[in-house]
Amino acid sequence: MRFKFPLMALGLEVGMIVLFGLFVHYETEQNIQQLNATKPTDTGRFLELYPLFQDVHVMVFVGIGFLMTFLKKYSFSSVGINLLIAALGLQWGTIVQGVLHSYGQTIHIGVENMINADFSTVTVLISFGAVLGKTSPVQMLIMTIIEIAVFAYNEYLVGEIFRASDTGASMTIHAFGAYFGLAVAGVLYRPGLRKGHENEESVYHSDLFAMIGTLFLWTFWPSFNSAIAEAGEKQYRAIVNTYLSLAACVLTTYAISSFLEHRGKLDMVHIQNATLAGGVAVGTCADMEIQPYSSMIIGSIAGIVSVFGYKFLTPFFATKLRIQDTCGVHNLHGLPGVVGGLAGIAAVGMGVSNTTTVAMQAAALGSSIGAALVGGLITGLILKIPIWGQPSDENCYDDSIYWEVPKKIDYDSHFHDYHQLNPEV
Amino acid sequence: MRFKFPLMALGLEVGMIVLFGLFVHYETEQNIQQLNATKPTDTGRFLELYPLFQDVHVMVFVGIGFLMTFLKKYSFSSVGINLLIAALGLQWGTIVQGVLHSYGQTIHIGVENMINADFSTVTVLISFGAVLGKTSPVQMLIMTIIEIAVFAYNEYLVGEIFRASDTGASMTIHAFGAYFGLAVAGVLYRPGLRKGHENEESVYHSDLFAMIGTLFLWTFWPSFNSAIAEAGEKQYRAIVNTYLSLAACVLTTYAISSFLEHRGKLDMVHIQNATLAGGVAVGTCADMEIQPYSSMIIGSIAGIVSVFGYKFLTPFFATKLRIQDTCGVHNLHGLPGVVGGLAGIAAVGMGVSNTTTVAMQAAALGSSIGAALVGGLITGLILKIPIWGQPSDENCYDDSIYWEVPKKIDYDSHFHDYHQLNPEV
Amino acid sequence: MRFKFPLMALGLEVGMIVLFGLFVHYETEQNIQQLNATKPTDTGRFLELYPLFQDVHVMVFVGIGFLMTFLKKYSFSSVGINLLIAALGLQWGTIVQGVLHSYGQTIHIGVENMINADFSTVTVLISFGAVLGKTSPVQMLIMTIIEIAVFAYNEYLVGEIFRASDTGASMTIHAFGAYFGLAVAGVLYRPGLRKGHENEESVYHSDLFAMIGTLFLWTFWPSFNSAIAEAGEKQYRAIVNTYLSLAACVLTTYAISSFLEHRGKLDMVHIQNATLAGGVAVGTCADMEIQPYSSMIIGSIAGIVSVFGYKFLTPFFATKLRIQDTCGVHNLHGLPGVVGGLAGIAAVGMGVSNTTTVAMQAAALGSSIGAALVGGLITGLILKIPIWGQPSDENCYDDSIYWEVPKKIDYDSHFHDYHQLNPEV
Repeated sequence: MRFKFPLMALGLEVGMIVLFGLFVHYETEQNIQQLNATKPTDTGRFLELYPLFQDVHVMVFVGIGFLMTFLKKYSFSSVGINLLIAALGLQWGTIVQGVLHSYGQTIHIGVENMINADFSTVTVLISFGAVLGKTSPVQMLIMTIIEIAVFAYNEYLVGEIFRASDTGASMTIHAFGAYFGLAVAGVLYRPGLRKGHENEESVYHSDLFAMIGTLFLWTFWPSFNSAIAEAGEKQYRAIVNTYLSLAACVLTTYAISSFLEHRGKLDMVHIQNATLAGGVAVGTCADMEIQPYSSMIIGSIAGIVSVFGYKFLTPFFATKLRIQDTCGVHNLHGLPGVVGGLAGIAAVGMGVSNTTTVAMQAAALGSSIGAALVGGLITGLILKIPIWGQPSDENCYDDSIYWEVPKKIDYDSHFHDYHQLNPEV
Repeated sequence: MRFKFPLMALGLEVGMIVLFGLFVHYETEQNIQQLNATKPTDTGRFLELYPLFQDVHVMVFVGIGFLMTFLKKYSFSSVGINLLIAALGLQWGTIVQGVLHSYGQTIHIGVENMINADFSTVTVLISFGAVLGKTSPVQMLIMTIIEIAVFAYNEYLVGEIFRASDTGASMTIHAFGAYFGLAVAGVLYRPGLRKGHENEESVYHSDLFAMIGTLFLWTFWPSFNSAIAEAGEKQYRAIVNTYLSLAACVLTTYAISSFLEHRGKLDMVHIQNATLAGGVAVGTCADMEIQPYSSMIIGSIAGIVSVFGYKFLTPFFATKLRIQDTCGVHNLHGLPGVVGGLAGIAAVGMGVSNTTTVAMQAAALGSSIGAALVGGLITGLILKIPIWGQPSDENCYDDSIYWEVPKKIDYDSHFHDYHQLNPEV
Repeated sequence: MRFKFPLMALGLEVGMIVLFGLFVHYETEQNIQQLNATKPTDTGRFLELYPLFQDVHVMVFVGIGFLMTFLKKYSFSSVGINLLIAALGLQWGTIVQGVLHSYGQTIHIGVENMINADFSTVTVLISFGAVLGKTSPVQMLIMTIIEIAVFAYNEYLVGEIFRASDTGASMTIHAFGAYFGLAVAGVLYRPGLRKGHENEESVYHSDLFAMIGTLFLWTFWPSFNSAIAEAGEKQYRAIVNTYLSLAACVLTTYAISSFLEHRGKLDMVHIQNATLAGGVAVGTCADMEIQPYSSMIIGSIAGIVSVFGYKFLTPFFATKLRIQDTCGVHNLHGLPGVVGGLAGIAAVGMGVSNTTTVAMQAAALGSSIGAALVGGLITGLILKIPIWGQPSDENCYDDSIYWEVPKKIDYDSHFHDYHQLNPEV
């Protein structure tokens, strides 16, 4: 590991610079007129969408990063490797999405490319959640490169070939990222962790750090689902529907968490994650005229499904299916993503949208899950090659193998010392 | 408690979905033209106000949520129940505000409705601060429903009947929320906590979590005070005045905190809270042409008043008035809200605004405090009924009665263990 | 200290109110037409730039504040004195920048003034990083007043006399702030801390708090570099270039950090700081047509230079040059700022921009460093006068001399107690 990681990271960055030198240029007013005057990519539209881009940017780097800090000894890796994956991923995403959509012509980078590049990283960050604590940084760099390529291809298929609707990307990002990650986790299954691991738990303050992630994801999710929606009414509806779906989802999450837990208590894992499922599930039909109460129904169902998933499916996956899903991405992104895809099919079936058909929506859902499973299996096999510095079972969920970690006790414990001789403090 | 909370939360969500199904529809270009072409609610204006809405959204969910995490053992509840109240409140606020303002007609939900719905939750979150640690989630659901209804009625009275000015809602949100909460806290007075409670204190890192809340509230407050201001000069002035009032407030808060504390030290409670009083106090006349230096005077006074309140009034309230105000909302929202109302009266008296009169401003202030006290007393009596799972004195300020709390020590202490003479901990 | 700090803080605020009363008024549509109809300061442009202002505002108060919380016992001061400096600095910056740019006429405060005022505080906050833990709040108030005056004069020289380009302020803010701080730190050199200090280290969660700062700075940096750029293509390019430079910088930072550390591990100090160097270094030519790949090269170099600086230069500075740079601002702001200035010279030399010349760019870089060093030396001598309550060597990096600090152990450690068998640690 001494040189593999530095060389790979440096090499990838050199590669990105070369690719950008060859393919990527600025947008200019002239480019835009040559291509399509009505395309909302001129510099005026740029500042209009820029706040939405920034919301998405915060979601990717702060939101997802901190959401994964809940493990007591793995917070540096969660927030740090999240940053590494996303920084590489947005460069690579710009290239592969750009090449696919510009048919090999020069890519003119605008605010929509930046939003889409950030989106492409989200798929990898979701999959990262499934294998959190059990993989090395080198393995994550490899997964970033493969997964974003597969994602971009599937997204192109869904959007350009099937011409299906998936504005908030329930299928192409959330379901895709989750099933890709589950496939990788399945291949990398560790029998030695069958009975859990002593590090795989939170402490009080690590759960609070995770809530920073949850709340920024929650507040900015309307921007995520609307950022690439068509300007005007569709974008407006994507915001309103997501706002309401998330609010409804919180109520059902709290209700079901309390209902299922010992003596009616709330479980932080549910609150941190399932409250966001409403944003995932309303994604596919976010911009459709489904009416506000329908988005609330979708959000309510998503919260319920997600909490049940955490309570019953995650243990089932770990013991029976031999898939260890650290963050429970199946419950936050997988199931709600499928719910979103099905809601989209139902909405189209009821005539809410006439830009797509039930068959095409179903094809999009199938393609997203299928591409994810196949891509994830292949990626898992590549990552399983024992040269990428994967941690031993014993060293899982522990920052100290990849990070210099402070050796000393914390401030509060410091005071603690002063009171030690007398235990009743 | 085993079933009361889940059933109430689920039932409320079902009720909200029914109400939205009956009353709430999307805005369309057509609606707008039918109603009022100049009203700034078309989808173009939507994206212009959306960044301000997002700032308010962050204030509600991240800002207020983390501000209350200062208690060492009650941070899960602070940030978690804050999310629950706000998610329910924004749905209910949309309905009651919408019904009042649309006279029972269909509510067309736009960005201003979303901002106002978020605002309506703030009143409850302020009142939540007064009773923090001493109430159950069920009680908070009940308070949310009652308080937002009373708030919406009072806001309608102030805005539509008195036609008073209160752009940043010093009176209708801050003073209202504080006095409502104090009335509830007074009714729920606990003689057993007269001498304090061992959990009612912070630790080093819980104070830092609270600063996350403080700083997001501080930076985004100009958006709060300007989000529903009239477009153009008034909105511009609301931003500038709030920006300057808050800056001035920081200086006086630090000065007075150091002046009043033992050996000139600063007190985190003052820094976390009183630095925000400038945003509260400048609210009523935020959009008026009071000149920049006047907003700085208002902010300076607010900081001074707020620190004095924390130092002398909170203990006085707890011991003499039998009102236990956990977060000191009287000092952050109550007093500065009244200062704001009085500043508004003075400004109108000096001819700064001609859209309202001194009498109407005074009526607005009186109505806000009066409605809050009456509403709070009645709510307190309802919450006092011993069937809502209110915690015993001993269990106050302790997450572990409502949450599954991690049992294990934290990471830093873990290293601590390595230095233990006795390794088997 | 009992009265010096409160009196100075109050006195400064009174002074600011008087200065604002004399010099600062609102912008009105009329003012703008009288001055310059094309200047992008009308209230319409106001809301367009307001989201960028808010991003900068978050960077100043949340970003820089939390970035400095990494010390285990000095987080209250980091985030608290950061707030104090910035709140004073933005008022004072409005005055001195306004007076210089309006030639003593009335200052009409608009969104660009607010952005520039926030910018002016950044110089002091950078210098604060160099002396963090070793100075008193009174000293920081003095430094704020002097440094912002010197900064405003140098910025005026660079922008109005040299007419040099420095959109993202690599030279005028970052290099200036760093060298000013280093000069102050050099004058205030403490031989007693030659071998370090037991408090000068992080704990696990203080490093995580610092990552909150890092990630908000990282995500919002494109707004910093573009906020005062010319509307249209230049502003667009400033955003895109910064976005890409930062992404590239992350990859090289991780690579070099791992390469230089013991057994290929990552160092949190590098990740927290050097990942941001790309934003600093691309500042000067952010709005130029340098092409995307060039910004990635600039970012890559900045990351490498910054990590090498942390590893080798900071110890060298401390031992040989007798300059103790607590946060390593030379590596995050000094060196990358110089890289930015040189990149600007190179870009202008290659004909990328025709609004400035190589000589003027070089003059701007020299002037920024020269003014910083002279200003910093004088400021250091003033701060050395032993009446400002500077802490003794022993009390350095310790909040408890200026703050009421919680005495009790934290929640996790509380559980810890239950497991203690052997009290002497």
